[in-house]
Amino acid sequence: MPDAIPDSLFDKSVGIVTPKVEHFSQPLTLRSGRVLNEYDLIYETYGTLNADASNAILICHALSGDHHAAGYHSKDDKKPGWWDTCIGPGKAIDTRRFFVVALNNLGGCAGSTGPTSINPETGKEFGPEFPILAVRDWVNSQARLADVLGIDCWAAVVGGSLGGMQVLRWSIQFPDRVKHAVVIASAPKLSAQNIAFNEVARQAIAKDPDFCGGWYLQHNTLPKTGLMQARMLGHLTYLSDNAMDQKFGRELSDGKLNFSFAPEFQVESYLHYQGEKFSRQFDANTYMLMTKALDYFDPARDHNDDLVACLRQTTCRFLVVSFTTDWRFAPARSEEIVNALMHADKDVSYACIESESGHDAFLLPIPRYLEVFSAYMDSVAEHCGIHKPSSVNGASS
Amino acid sequence: MPDAIPDSLFDKSVGIVTPKVEHFSQPLTLRSGRVLNEYDLIYETYGTLNADASNAILICHALSGDHHAAGYHSKDDKKPGWWDTCIGPGKAIDTRRFFVVALNNLGGCAGSTGPTSINPETGKEFGPEFPILAVRDWVNSQARLADVLGIDCWAAVVGGSLGGMQVLRWSIQFPDRVKHAVVIASAPKLSAQNIAFNEVARQAIAKDPDFCGGWYLQHNTLPKTGLMQARMLGHLTYLSDNAMDQKFGRELSDGKLNFSFAPEFQVESYLHYQGEKFSRQFDANTYMLMTKALDYFDPARDHNDDLVACLRQTTCRFLVVSFTTDWRFAPARSEEIVNALMHADKDVSYACIESESGHDAFLLPIPRYLEVFSAYMDSVAEHCGIHKPSSVNGASS
Repeated sequence: MPDAIPDSLFDKSVGIVTPKVEHFSQPLTLRSGRVLNEYDLIYETYGTLNADASNAILICHALSGDHHAAGYHSKDDKKPGWWDTCIGPGKAIDTRRFFVVALNNLGGCAGSTGPTSINPETGKEFGPEFPILAVRDWVNSQARLADVLGIDCWAAVVGGSLGGMQVLRWSIQFPDRVKHAVVIASAPKLSAQNIAFNEVARQAIAKDPDFCGGWYLQHNTLPKTGLMQARMLGHLTYLSDNAMDQKFGRELSDGKLNFSFAPEFQVESYLHYQGEKFSRQFDANTYMLMTKALDYFDPARDHNDDLVACLRQTTCRFLVVSFTTDWRFAPARSEEIVNALMHADKDVSYACIESESGHDAFLLPIPRYLEVFSAYMDSVAEHCGIHKPSSVNGASS
Repeated sequence: MPDAIPDSLFDKSVGIVTPKVEHFSQPLTLRSGRVLNEYDLIYETYGTLNADASNAILICHALSGDHHAAGYHSKDDKKPGWWDTCIGPGKAIDTRRFFVVALNNLGGCAGSTGPTSINPETGKEFGPEFPILAVRDWVNSQARLADVLGIDCWAAVVGGSLGGMQVLRWSIQFPDRVKHAVVIASAPKLSAQNIAFNEVARQAIAKDPDFCGGWYLQHNTLPKTGLMQARMLGHLTYLSDNAMDQKFGRELSDGKLNFSFAPEFQVESYLHYQGEKFSRQFDANTYMLMTKALDYFDPARDHNDDLVACLRQTTCRFLVVSFTTDWRFAPARSEEIVNALMHADKDVSYACIESESGHDAFLLPIPRYLEVFSAYMDSVAEHCGIHKPSSVNGASS
């Protein structure tokens, strides 16, 4: 098996994991007023839930993420889950002491009910009729999954980017069910510029003739061109100017200018490749939905735009992390959260991590980031009375 | 005439101007190796060329600019030329003492030969067969226009953004024909991120089914959707995050979330409006060409990427201007030019202007900007021995 993962990497992971699907038949009323009468959530778990269910960590995913956050689905997998750098034995979220739950959000395209699922009322795919969701809807559905799993209170809810927004919403909506909130590379709401980028991406998808108003599956087609363009633009905003210059500079694929409109700079070829790959893997209606949830997120709106008042109702401890070259959600956006928490007299730790990698940094094994994250998760364990794993420290805490 | 311009504005302008067209029948060999056998350049002039032709200023336009830089085409015009804030009697480029030439670049769509022109060899529009141009090609064609106008040496060549690149190229390519170079909100070359944004915009156009591989005119259609998306993205990068937040914030057009994919935030409606307007006015093939010229510009490439060596051959004085919140061509990019000029022991003035307006600032009447620009143009006049206008100062210099 030449393409399989080396044992050394596999051994540092949670190993082979198998997703589970939970069906919910209690109707869920959404922020929009619409109702999902029933739905599935697909999820994975890593580690073991302890007797008093005090060691559970919820992972919230970002725009294109899913439930496969760590480990491998088979030994032939070429890549582990999307956050394997942070979740596993001995990692920041140490699966030897924590029980980790990662799910695919409602509206997703990786197994939870979403636009590609069959609408039981029509017998056809939901397609564009799948309701537009708000972050709070995800949190409500995640709370029901917690109920099923017997988790009254999460030791921590953790997420980056759009995942960080879910974490914030958890802390506000279910203060009794969250002990720690880890909000990474996120923001209390999108700026006008953020919204504008999302709208350009949505236009690229919606105006692709193969989008068919969102009914592409019924037309046996896929809006791959639009989705590719949306991803090219998204990807570009995840990277820093410097990182792109270091990675690609002005290098030409052929070593010379071609005076044609085919991609000739390496950065063009790279974005084409990334966009094309994504367009084969992701659902366009899900992309549309996810960007809308980003746009809509603004918990302070219910409090006259007063983020301090909004966060006053929280009771958990917070870790907020930002990255210096992240211009999608710049450190200043994280600092709005931190400042509001401090004004609301909450327990908050903050780290702005030096990195060249832009928004993508939250997925990367940056030593200082892993160090801060691990130290905080140690304090989560201590605060929640969770035993240290015996291979690290034989003594009980 | 309720919609006509008020007299007060008109009187501060160069008044009614009439474009002229010059036909060139001497073949122009382009950077790509291709040859334009003949071509037209449309241009406007403001002010009067003096006896020794020492008071001529060339204005180089940016991506979507044209020859109509100042004044009005009729008293019914709602808006003056695109740089009327800076060109006119008593303005930074004072038409009482300078003779100003503004042209539409080759490949443009406002009257100079470009993709919408008839290719004399085929009798049909050039369309996508119009050659991809480099900045040096524009400069060569502009030099021929200078010859026709009897201008051996420009008192100054002036431009912002892509216009600033033409200015730099003039200073390198025709050191004997430029006394002053004014390079505003520009860069010595695009970064990988800049190129990536251009490529996303080009993809939006090229993948619009109405683009028809660039032959839309022959198919009696226009790739308005793609051009609109390209402009939305471009426009978004011309504004600063702060400026967008101040102008639009998260205001909703209907005052409430609609849970639909129609534009609902005001910033979305604004970008749709701007994009739609542009898509009716601009030629898609020209947009493609102009972005390629931006990508290709890299004068240091011929000097082993040594900008100092490249600029050593210049002999003019320089003014370089940047704007604090311009993230398309950030101050650091202007400072690369300034530093290289200083290392090459050239005469350079530099101002980084405080502004909230992003890249668009170079078109706006920002007091400190106009002050710096005017002061520099005073020194240009003095250095070139140009009389001050009598209404400002009766004495000759």
